Amino acid sequence: MLPAVGKLEAMSADECLKRLRTQHIGRIALVNHDGRPLIFPINYFFDEGLVAFRTGGGSKLDLAPGSHVAFETDGWDPDSGLGWSVIVTGVARDFTRTRGVPASRIAFWPVRPLAPGTREHLIGIQANEVTGRWFRTSAHRPST
Amino acid sequence: MLPAVGKLEAMSADECLKRLRTQHIGRIALVNHDGRPLIFPINYFFDEGLVAFRTGGGSKLDLAPGSHVAFETDGWDPDSGLGWSVIVTGVARDFTRTRGVPASRIAFWPVRPLAPGTREHLIGIQANEVTGRWFRTSAHRPST
Repeated sequence: MLPAVGKLEAMSADECLKRLRTQHIGRIALVNHDGRPLIFPINYFFDEGLVAFRTGGGSKLDLAPGSHVAFETDGWDPDSGLGWSVIVTGVARDFTRTRGVPASRIAFWPVRPLAPGTREHLIGIQANEVTGRWFRTSAHRPST
Repeated sequence: MLPAVGKLEAMSADECLKRLRTQHIGRIALVNHDGRPLIFPINYFFDEGLVAFRTGGGSKLDLAPGSHVAFETDGWDPDSGLGWSVIVTGVARDFTRTRGVPASRIAFWPVRPLAPGTREHLIGIQANEVTGRWFRTSAHRPST
């Protein structure tokens, strides 16, 4: 059920999972060695409670595996006035060279970066907490 | 100049600032008291090297002022195949009750949250570093 107009509401767990599954662009937040936050856009694929993404070398590969990370995806449709966001927190793990289940399945997931470049590492965020919020305003664009 | 098809390129400083000025939805990454990253969507207004946003009480107000934070905004247009992101890092400051310049100007900026609710605090991220990347793929949607 959509949120009431003019209210910011918590999204149901089912709705959060549905939106995680249908979106493929999000952002990951990490903490660097100085204790400062970093944020990066990622293309991801969500299934089995896991936000999977690919990366080359760099900060995401250095900092994510074994660490607590946060992930966010959102959307805003001016025509309907519907805005929403889903946040996932959990520990990231490098599945690149992992054997067995679930790595053997994840290797076949359609984790497709849009940006050009080689991204040989497959990282998964094991969702510990999934929360979402949404709201509906009056439509912002006048109907024509 | 747009990036070459099939290349992920650094965005010029001018292009980063232009996109920060024309967008109004982004995400802020913070570090909580346990040293774990948090991420939140925000509506922002950028000018004078400052990412300004409004918030009520809660994690953003508790954790941002006086701390290093990271901010990101991005876009992806399947029709043109153009994808981009801009990242701002810097220290956040609570301008709600600050007097003098620049607070006296910031108070008049159109910092307009889309989500319903009271957000009495005005926070600014003083940009220390602004970087952007963009790429262009072949258009993903077949022309009709």
